[in-house]
Amino acid sequence: MKKIIANIFVATGLAAALCSPVFADGNHKNIGAAIYNAKGELLQPEGFRQWVFIGAPLTPNGLNGGQAGFPEFHHVYVNPDAFAVYQRTGEFPDGTVIAKELVLLKPGKYEDGSYDAPSGRGFFADKYHGMDVMVKDSKRFKKTNGWGFFNFGHHAPPYIKTAEAASIDSCAGCHQANAEKDMVFTQFYPILK
Amino acid sequence: MKKIIANIFVATGLAAALCSPVFADGNHKNIGAAIYNAKGELLQPEGFRQWVFIGAPLTPNGLNGGQAGFPEFHHVYVNPDAFAVYQRTGEFPDGTVIAKELVLLKPGKYEDGSYDAPSGRGFFADKYHGMDVMVKDSKRFKKTNGWGFFNFGHHAPPYIKTAEAASIDSCAGCHQANAEKDMVFTQFYPILK
Repeated sequence: MKKIIANIFVATGLAAALCSPVFADGNHKNIGAAIYNAKGELLQPEGFRQWVFIGAPLTPNGLNGGQAGFPEFHHVYVNPDAFAVYQRTGEFPDGTVIAKELVLLKPGKYEDGSYDAPSGRGFFADKYHGMDVMVKDSKRFKKTNGWGFFNFGHHAPPYIKTAEAASIDSCAGCHQANAEKDMVFTQFYPILK
Repeated sequence: MKKIIANIFVATGLAAALCSPVFADGNHKNIGAAIYNAKGELLQPEGFRQWVFIGAPLTPNGLNGGQAGFPEFHHVYVNPDAFAVYQRTGEFPDGTVIAKELVLLKPGKYEDGSYDAPSGRGFFADKYHGMDVMVKDSKRFKKTNGWGFFNFGHHAPPYIKTAEAASIDSCAGCHQANAEKDMVFTQFYPILK
C-alpha cells in the first residue's frame, strides 16, 4: 500500500510537470509581470494589447490649442492577474502593471481633428504612436507613492526595449494630484469602479 | 512493474482531473463562444470585457447634430480564440464573436460634449450604456454575409439576457457597405491590420 501511494505521488508529480507547459503557453499566471534588467530598467512588457482593457481617453490636439500632452487615443490595459486581485479586493496589488498605448487619430478635415465615418463624425484610431507603463511596487517606488512610471517612446513602433523610471515631475506628480484612487485615474475607467 | 504502470495511469488521470478546474476557471479554450437557446436567440456573452480589446471609436452627439446613432464610446472586443486564429490567418473564423459596449461620455460643458480633465480637454468614459454583438457563422447567417447581429439593449446594465438576430437593414447593411474586411470595420482597428 505504501508503495502504491508512493507511486501516486511520483505520477502526480509527473502529471503536474506535464501541465506546466500548458500554463507556460499563454495560460500561466502572472502574465505581464514587471521584469527589470541589472541596471534596474523595466523591460518593455510583452503582449499588453491582450491584457484587460480599461479605457480609451482622448484629448485631441484640436481641442487643446495644438498642445495636448497626449493628442492620441490612450488605450489603457492592466495585467490580468493584478486585475483579478483588484476585482476581489478593490486595491491594486504590488505587481500591478498598467500600460498606456497612444494611437493616432484618423486625420479628419475639421479643426478639432474629427473625421467623417459612415457611423458619423467623430474620432477613430489610426496607427500606434507610443507607449507608457506604470508599475506598482510599494518598496521599489516608495518615493513616488508606490508607483514607477516608464516611457517607452512617443513615436511609431518599435518602442524602446528598456526604460528607466521617470522623474517625479514627469508623470507621478500629476497622477498624485489628480488620480482618484492610488495614482490611477479610476474616475475615467468604469471597469475599475 | 505492470502494477506500477497501472498506478501511474490512474494517478495521472487524477492529476489531469485536478488540472481541469484551472482551465474551467477562465483559462479554458473557447472563451466567448456563441451560445443559442432553443428559439435560436443568442445568449448574452459573459466576460466580454476581458476579451481582446480592438478599439474605441467615438461619434459624440455634439458633433452629429444631437443625432448620433451611437453617441457613446464604442468599446469593441473580440473573443480570444477567434483573435488567435485571425492573427495566424488574417481571416475571421466561424465562431468569431465581436462585442461592442457603449459607454457614456463624462458630461462636459462644451457644445461638442467634451470635458475638461487634468490631462486636457477631450472625451472620457463615464458609465456603461448598451451592448451589441456580431457573430460569424457562415451557414447560420448566410443571408447577412455570414454574420449575425444582435442588440442586447441601448441603456444602462443589466442588458437583456437573450437577443434574436437583427434584420438586415438595422446593422448588416451598413457593415456590408462600409466595413473594410468581411463586415468588420478593420480600418479603425490597428490590432486587426
